[in-house]
Amino acid sequence: MRTAPTLLALTLDAALLRIATLRDLSRLPDHILFDLFRRTLSAGKLTEKVLKLFLATDCEEIILLVQLLNIKQPLIPAWQPFFSRFDIIVVKDPELAADLQIPSGFNVKVYTKSDIDGLLGATSINFSGHSCRYFGYLVSRKKYVISIDDNCLPAKDPAGMTVDAVTQHMVNLKTPATPFFFNTLYDPYRKGADFVRGYPFSLREGVECMLSCGLWLHNADYDPMTHVVKRNQRNTNYVDAVMTVPLGAMFPVSGINVAFNREVLGPVMFPGLRIRKEGKHRWDTLEDIWNGLCAKVICDSLGYGVKTGLPYVMRSDAEAGKALESLKEWEGVKVMDDVLPFFESLKLSRTAVTVDDCIKELAGIVRQKLAPKNAIFSKAADAMEEWTKLWKSHGAQNA
Amino acid sequence: MRTAPTLLALTLDAALLRIATLRDLSRLPDHILFDLFRRTLSAGKLTEKVLKLFLATDCEEIILLVQLLNIKQPLIPAWQPFFSRFDIIVVKDPELAADLQIPSGFNVKVYTKSDIDGLLGATSINFSGHSCRYFGYLVSRKKYVISIDDNCLPAKDPAGMTVDAVTQHMVNLKTPATPFFFNTLYDPYRKGADFVRGYPFSLREGVECMLSCGLWLHNADYDPMTHVVKRNQRNTNYVDAVMTVPLGAMFPVSGINVAFNREVLGPVMFPGLRIRKEGKHRWDTLEDIWNGLCAKVICDSLGYGVKTGLPYVMRSDAEAGKALESLKEWEGVKVMDDVLPFFESLKLSRTAVTVDDCIKELAGIVRQKLAPKNAIFSKAADAMEEWTKLWKSHGAQNA
Repeated sequence: MRTAPTLLALTLDAALLRIATLRDLSRLPDHILFDLFRRTLSAGKLTEKVLKLFLATDCEEIILLVQLLNIKQPLIPAWQPFFSRFDIIVVKDPELAADLQIPSGFNVKVYTKSDIDGLLGATSINFSGHSCRYFGYLVSRKKYVISIDDNCLPAKDPAGMTVDAVTQHMVNLKTPATPFFFNTLYDPYRKGADFVRGYPFSLREGVECMLSCGLWLHNADYDPMTHVVKRNQRNTNYVDAVMTVPLGAMFPVSGINVAFNREVLGPVMFPGLRIRKEGKHRWDTLEDIWNGLCAKVICDSLGYGVKTGLPYVMRSDAEAGKALESLKEWEGVKVMDDVLPFFESLKLSRTAVTVDDCIKELAGIVRQKLAPKNAIFSKAADAMEEWTKLWKSHGAQNA
Repeated sequence: MRTAPTLLALTLDAALLRIATLRDLSRLPDHILFDLFRRTLSAGKLTEKVLKLFLATDCEEIILLVQLLNIKQPLIPAWQPFFSRFDIIVVKDPELAADLQIPSGFNVKVYTKSDIDGLLGATSINFSGHSCRYFGYLVSRKKYVISIDDNCLPAKDPAGMTVDAVTQHMVNLKTPATPFFFNTLYDPYRKGADFVRGYPFSLREGVECMLSCGLWLHNADYDPMTHVVKRNQRNTNYVDAVMTVPLGAMFPVSGINVAFNREVLGPVMFPGLRIRKEGKHRWDTLEDIWNGLCAKVICDSLGYGVKTGLPYVMRSDAEAGKALESLKEWEGVKVMDDVLPFFESLKLSRTAVTVDDCIKELAGIVRQKLAPKNAIFSKAADAMEEWTKLWKSHGAQNA
């Protein structure tokens, strides 16, 4: 005996027949979308165009499934409205064997292992994995650089508008930062805000902002342990604020979604700290955290500001099983317990008046104070010194 | 020739006839509500019950008009669902001549000038204006105190839910604070959040939170100059976050909406700094800012935490004309330029291990370093020392 098909099933069948001609799925509820997506996949109808249609809905389950099934997706097109006016640098991970698939319609320059080797020759800096992006920082000739991980898509704000991460990062960098006193209404330069009562008038001009650290929705940026324990937790809290991280306060900069003033901060934007067996996953890297702490102490010392908060990106990619695998050999558990007190107690000398001066001094202090504790710090100091040389020879030219 | 009335006017007339029997106006658009409110007022139909009906809509224009016309409104009933389980202390401003109107249905204890004089006798502490609340801190016998200005009503969150400020303050005080490293996802103890990658594991237990500084929507907490310049600007940005103010970072605590652990922090919750001609308006007070800076340096020194962010309250009362009046003689412009560097460079000795030890030491340093610059600091030091005596004799008893 056959059961009569439901009205929903019939509707989905009809939609599947016409899937290649549909132009907008964004009004469907997520569970129906997801069902339609699975049927499309089973029916062999998931062309690049249809995939784009589904991805445009921002349905989290679909994005996850696309990641988990490793379906080739052209990630950049979602960024087209925001990136197409700008120069894009793509640096291919030197250890990645597969070819990159770069969609057309962008002003893209791609760098590969042979470009890195050809330009730099023998270097102690390891550009593999997430660290490949730093080569892009070096060869860019622009004043501002925005760097976003390849598993990120534009986020939507609570009103359903797609976030223009480029514009928000530029606003963050081009309006002053206020590191000397916390403003309880957050960014005082934002429309509708100002400095609250009690904020000293002499500090209201602020200082130049050099680093803007954006955030991410969906897949939070946790270490492997937290990923394993909270494998089903997703970040859904959109906090509508930008704030300056106060002078002297340290914070964990994530490389997922950052922007910076390359002209000023370039000499400190390097991959220094690599833990043994550090892999391809954000969760087992500390290179960006170390980089961020170096940048923050130098900004503090030179009177520059650093902001965190908006813009958000939507971060897919949840590989809980693999986080467990990373965990087995993960060295990162205790590293930060040495690193943070070191940076918190650091005082750079007043005679170091440029970022280049500061990073050279900092490398020396790392070698003296941290290197005896763990060989990774000695290698970090090497990388810091090497980077200042690379920057001088290859990075510091004007546009 | 008479013009035929519009359908809207006829509807409003009909509503006005039945206004005393209506039970919910919350679905009306604000401009119609406001029109109905003005007609009700003109028709002499604004009873206490009807006023409550209008206030329950949270229509900002109505709340402003109620303030501007100085209509007697029982503010506490809006707080009834949140306050009725708790002990309420009302301290009448000793300079206020009019009688207080306290609605029934609350567990309220009212203190007046004669109670203050009777209990304390001659004291150098000035409890007039906004400072009257500190007498309540002294005579309370509870572990936790929440203090909200009398021109505030419960706020609504972006989803339209009325904010339970009491519960949110208690969550802030009873979950740990994390002053030693900034968490980019803000409060790591919040549902759906955690510590981000790079946060040292040894710091994830956090420390006890002693002070929770809530925020306010609508009428922002500006100094008189900003009030005059931005007389039409309202704060509408609901930032859905709680964060610990980092160790060493100073911030302006507003007395509008605060909660604290009275058992621990009581000896530092005093009105110390009064500028000459300081009046009855928040915009020309600095007493809470000074109090907050003292509390913050002491919490930093003793290893306690301080949070800012949620909960919001809705703050009415916009008196731009009067802000201009305050401005003419306002001394507050330059005060903070002496105060902030003082607090930022302050180091309390390691031998000061209680809040009482710390505030005594701090009073001495204020007298030595700041008092020579301005007599108001000398008076602040007097008040700080006087408060430690008052606290010992009248505040420190257990519940």
